[in-house]
Amino acid sequence: MIQKEMVRVINTGGTFNKRYDPVEGNLFVPPDDTAVVEALASMRHGEEIVVGGAIYKDSLDMDDADRDLLCKIVADTMEDRIVIVHGTDTMDKSAAAIDRWLGKKSGKSVVLTGAMVPFSIDAVEATANLASAVTAVRYVAPGVFIAMHGMVLPYGRIVKNRRLGVFEAISE
Amino acid sequence: MIQKEMVRVINTGGTFNKRYDPVEGNLFVPPDDTAVVEALASMRHGEEIVVGGAIYKDSLDMDDADRDLLCKIVADTMEDRIVIVHGTDTMDKSAAAIDRWLGKKSGKSVVLTGAMVPFSIDAVEATANLASAVTAVRYVAPGVFIAMHGMVLPYGRIVKNRRLGVFEAISE
Amino acid sequence: MIQKEMVRVINTGGTFNKRYDPVEGNLFVPPDDTAVVEALASMRHGEEIVVGGAIYKDSLDMDDADRDLLCKIVADTMEDRIVIVHGTDTMDKSAAAIDRWLGKKSGKSVVLTGAMVPFSIDAVEATANLASAVTAVRYVAPGVFIAMHGMVLPYGRIVKNRRLGVFEAISE
Amino acid sequence: MIQKEMVRVINTGGTFNKRYDPVEGNLFVPPDDTAVVEALASMRHGEEIVVGGAIYKDSLDMDDADRDLLCKIVADTMEDRIVIVHGTDTMDKSAAAIDRWLGKKSGKSVVLTGAMVPFSIDAVEATANLASAVTAVRYVAPGVFIAMHGMVLPYGRIVKNRRLGVFEAISE
Repeated sequence: MIQKEMVRVINTGGTFNKRYDPVEGNLFVPPDDTAVVEALASMRHGEEIVVGGAIYKDSLDMDDADRDLLCKIVADTMEDRIVIVHGTDTMDKSAAAIDRWLGKKSGKSVVLTGAMVPFSIDAVEATANLASAVTAVRYVAPGVFIAMHGMVLPYGRIVKNRRLGVFEAISE
Repeated sequence: MIQKEMVRVINTGGTFNKRYDPVEGNLFVPPDDTAVVEALASMRHGEEIVVGGAIYKDSLDMDDADRDLLCKIVADTMEDRIVIVHGTDTMDKSAAAIDRWLGKKSGKSVVLTGAMVPFSIDAVEATANLASAVTAVRYVAPGVFIAMHGMVLPYGRIVKNRRLGVFEAISE
Repeated sequence: MIQKEMVRVINTGGTFNKRYDPVEGNLFVPPDDTAVVEALASMRHGEEIVVGGAIYKDSLDMDDADRDLLCKIVADTMEDRIVIVHGTDTMDKSAAAIDRWLGKKSGKSVVLTGAMVPFSIDAVEATANLASAVTAVRYVAPGVFIAMHGMVLPYGRIVKNRRLGVFEAISE
Repeated sequence: MIQKEMVRVINTGGTFNKRYDPVEGNLFVPPDDTAVVEALASMRHGEEIVVGGAIYKDSLDMDDADRDLLCKIVADTMEDRIVIVHGTDTMDKSAAAIDRWLGKKSGKSVVLTGAMVPFSIDAVEATANLASAVTAVRYVAPGVFIAMHGMVLPYGRIVKNRRLGVFEAISE
């Protein structure tokens, strides 16, 4: 039964996780999974979702070594249904890298998601994206997808509109 | 392409929608779609989701006439992908009624969802359930489902644990 | 120096403290000081404010025995600057009872406050009232006052407008 | 009667007002009074508080010309009870400048306040500081004060602890 398959959530940082540091007076990506864990806890799901984290960077600061590490983590993950919380700016780049790394025969369904506004500022957008990703990952075929702003699409068919701050489907 | 299919959200009230009335000093189910619209707006989705409402009751107060009306609304809805925001206490009863009403050949995918805590008190649980339902309704086969607390299951395979206040899968 | 005088906050319950019980599906006055402590913590004050609680009732449910107990607690409090978090419906009645009990020579400055909407639903109104009370109690002369909705007045000069859900000054 | 005296709130910007810009991915000081007006509205006060704004800067970016302008605005304000919402980093500098500008015989009571965390991120700390300032300004003698973190003190007797991110009284 589909609900019994485990889902692994890999948190890499990005806007979703940003918190305010009152001493420094700015937002930062914390090296922890607080926001992701809090959002998931609110779903009151059972033991079928597990969370882990790595990298913890603004996605503009991710370099090739970070992306290689992420690909390796995904490939080594025991679960076949994987959600990645990621910064929105290079989400597509990481998606492409993971797709290349996994190749055609991996059997893994990977859904990347994130947020335009930190969970600590607007919990609703971040939660909606994460819930959408965690739900979709149980249905999509093997491959790499992006779940943002109510859409779940193969990563090459959805793009961030940087001027408007929303993700949009690419018309074929 | 799946994302192009329209989704209809039918709001019937229930805890998801409850707001506090400072003059009366209690929570009430308002005769409007404010909470649902606000939660959906945060998803920044496009024109592929439309919202309407009816009944606007605590689901314990729904009677057979209300349920008949709901069935009629669902059957008459132009869209084949339908999410129903509903009180949790009789969600299963309405699901069964809709299933009977639609019969085997309807072609409609219906996902009921709701919340244990009002969106106005804890936006996160309510948003997660709604986002999960709106996402799942694009994938599930024709039939009637319940999306609550991280699970999306045929309505007869998920039940509210009244003591703990969570929905649980029924083991076969 | 005025800031060095200790302030005692006595929490008696009322709407300020109400929380939602997802299992019962309603709001209740919890037998604890969670909301008051959380609101005060956000002020980042030092050791000059101490919190205690008693009674923990909706103020409509307070009877003469409760009010006698409250008067006794206030009279026995070591600190001379006392804030009471109280339900709004009988705040004036408790204020009058405390005034009679303390008499003319007590030397105690007592400020009652509360909220029209629970802190757990709208933290801002509740916080504003409490911050106003905690600030005013350092300035007012001995006597019994109500701090609500931006006003701090002797208890007989401010009244709850039950139709509008706001406190108003009584014109002389 | 003290409550009938008008209070003028002058918003100059600072952390209190910061909002998140999803397109730029950072916090900014908006050229408006949204946060201050929203916090005050929650107090449900009457017509005795009026709000205006100017400068709208992070207080680290305020220069001598800004401070001269602020002094001029304060001196020209019709009301004698004035609250200034200001960034915390140079709040003391502006307080000293206003004190010099007004001189000994002004008759004006000025209370500066602000927040360590934006109202849009943690409404509670910001609200508590503003409510405290608006309340205290009705009681303090003519002069310039700072209301932060539960304290209301002459500006020279309270200082920001930059390491801890809280304001502290200066022991004499």
